[in-house]
Amino acid sequence: MKIGILGGGQLARMLALAGYPLGMEFMVLDPAGDACARPLAQGIQAPYGDPAGLERLAREVDLVTYEFENVPAEAVARLQGQGKVFPGPLALATARDRLAEKRLFHELEIETAPFAAVEDEESLAAAVDRVGLPAILKSRTLGYDGKGQVRIGADEEPRAAWRALGEVPAILEGVVAFEREVSLIGVRGRDGAMAFYPLAENLHGDGILRLSRSRPGDPLQSRAETLVARILERLDYVGVLAVEFFQVGEQLLANEMAPRVHNSGHWTIEGAVASQFENHLRAVAGWPLGATSPTGHAAMVNLIGEAPPPSRVLKIPGAHLHLYGKASRPGRKVGHVTLVDAQQSRLEERLADLLEVLGEGGETGE
Amino acid sequence: MKIGILGGGQLARMLALAGYPLGMEFMVLDPAGDACARPLAQGIQAPYGDPAGLERLAREVDLVTYEFENVPAEAVARLQGQGKVFPGPLALATARDRLAEKRLFHELEIETAPFAAVEDEESLAAAVDRVGLPAILKSRTLGYDGKGQVRIGADEEPRAAWRALGEVPAILEGVVAFEREVSLIGVRGRDGAMAFYPLAENLHGDGILRLSRSRPGDPLQSRAETLVARILERLDYVGVLAVEFFQVGEQLLANEMAPRVHNSGHWTIEGAVASQFENHLRAVAGWPLGATSPTGHAAMVNLIGEAPPPSRVLKIPGAHLHLYGKASRPGRKVGHVTLVDAQQSRLEERLADLLEVLGEGGETGE
Repeated sequence: MKIGILGGGQLARMLALAGYPLGMEFMVLDPAGDACARPLAQGIQAPYGDPAGLERLAREVDLVTYEFENVPAEAVARLQGQGKVFPGPLALATARDRLAEKRLFHELEIETAPFAAVEDEESLAAAVDRVGLPAILKSRTLGYDGKGQVRIGADEEPRAAWRALGEVPAILEGVVAFEREVSLIGVRGRDGAMAFYPLAENLHGDGILRLSRSRPGDPLQSRAETLVARILERLDYVGVLAVEFFQVGEQLLANEMAPRVHNSGHWTIEGAVASQFENHLRAVAGWPLGATSPTGHAAMVNLIGEAPPPSRVLKIPGAHLHLYGKASRPGRKVGHVTLVDAQQSRLEERLADLLEVLGEGGETGE
Repeated sequence: MKIGILGGGQLARMLALAGYPLGMEFMVLDPAGDACARPLAQGIQAPYGDPAGLERLAREVDLVTYEFENVPAEAVARLQGQGKVFPGPLALATARDRLAEKRLFHELEIETAPFAAVEDEESLAAAVDRVGLPAILKSRTLGYDGKGQVRIGADEEPRAAWRALGEVPAILEGVVAFEREVSLIGVRGRDGAMAFYPLAENLHGDGILRLSRSRPGDPLQSRAETLVARILERLDYVGVLAVEFFQVGEQLLANEMAPRVHNSGHWTIEGAVASQFENHLRAVAGWPLGATSPTGHAAMVNLIGEAPPPSRVLKIPGAHLHLYGKASRPGRKVGHVTLVDAQQSRLEERLADLLEVLGEGGETGE
């Protein structure tokens, strides 16, 4: 079975690494000639919306999936016409538009922070009245890793933020004093079967995920599964879906979702029986889902900007290094490291060692 | 770091799958244009001894390793001149010659079945006198998966076997009534550090490995480690080495060794913290070795001849499917499946399910 992937970055790379053992082959479509999945896949170098490139991809593969939600909707619609794109266009259209996403959450009675649509200065003023300040103004589309958003302080001028964002269709979201951010990764097969990984608890810095810890047995697991199951069923979803929540007391507020494998699930490669990458592929291929049960307590640390020399990481007992083959650049995710241990306390000790090696001691949040 | 591999089969493929996350890239040299590691590596299609191919390989990679021991010694010597082939030529020369191998075992006071060199009909008669019958006549080189060997029954004519083997330099080995066959996979780094996986217990059929079970805590573990450590040190070995033993009572008789990753260690992908593939690469790269500790009890079943449809295997909870992307052919290893469980008894239940799905019920040896 040959899988086409829109996007040839690290998520496509890890999908390919998970898929070869299943007997799959891969072709990625990416505008960049040096996309980091390329050594592991055939490649088409073309813009995501390029009709000729999409047509070739559709012709050469059995089915198409994507590694990020900012592909043009028309591109997916074009592939959908041939019945071979998973997850489907409805999931993509919803996830790529922060407003549509929040409206879906409300329709499904999933709580969120207060929000309001912003289309111009007039609706901005109304939104501020409704949501209050401080708040965050986010572009409806094309936002990821903290991009496309501007914070408006309690005594700041909202119009400055509006201009800074580029006066594009936006959503104003209230700032929530949350205790922690968690994400749930769910997967749904073509037959409707669903499975969920243990919740992950996430720490961000500068808008980029820095650290995820798996939380097997978390008291909010069952509640989060109920909410994500609603989304999976409503969208007739096929594949892996990640949903980020803020926890406020015992309440879970949905923040955003990603219709794909997700950075907060990279720990599943070693920390669960079948990884999110394998399960995404099993789902889109129409095969039985793999076990999402944990193999221990896991922690994943992103390598951002520049990867350390491998030896420095590999001297930490049990450290699993994942480099993406990308050149160094400030703020760029170039790899991650995962630790797994049967004991939470021992995991934390080794995590402290790892963070010290990475020069990030003291940022573990515990 | 770019790694060159002599041979582009499933072992090279699994080395590449383990090495990309470490930031490595791969180039394989193989006479076949459709070698199954090719989708995951750059390739040179050339005979193993081809000077131009070897020169290009040496020029384009940082170091060279191999996936099987039947590469021409001159090819490795040529690469060794540039100081970049691991394991080194002494290990290869020893492992590719059954007689040299057995003599090394004796030199290191590692017991074996009785054996004698056979070069002609005269030495054959002397060998039969010394070793006794039944015995197995094996070609000194180019034997694997039961090839290159002929059994001589207690009342059979040895010269018929000698002719059947092609009258090539050979070794006559006594048949041992062993209780079980086990293998130990060890790894030694460039700095001399060594690590060993739990013993694997192996079942063969028609000369081909069918099933390996990891045996964490086996009473013979420490003895086997002592013996393999002697070999690793004597050969100043770098990389993974597999040694097969027959157990007779509490005695371990060395049968043969492979200077490379080995089929009886495929279970380490999920059944140990760092797999044999990752550790081979870490060793040859000069990096710290990874933990060889088990993640549970593991069993690995080879898929021989033809792979079943993926869905049939994947419906077994926790089954890890590994297909090699090879066409079906009788007797060919086309993939394997690994199961891991914290409890030995539960593993055996699931293994029985798996063997039933594969149409091999009742062959588990337990």
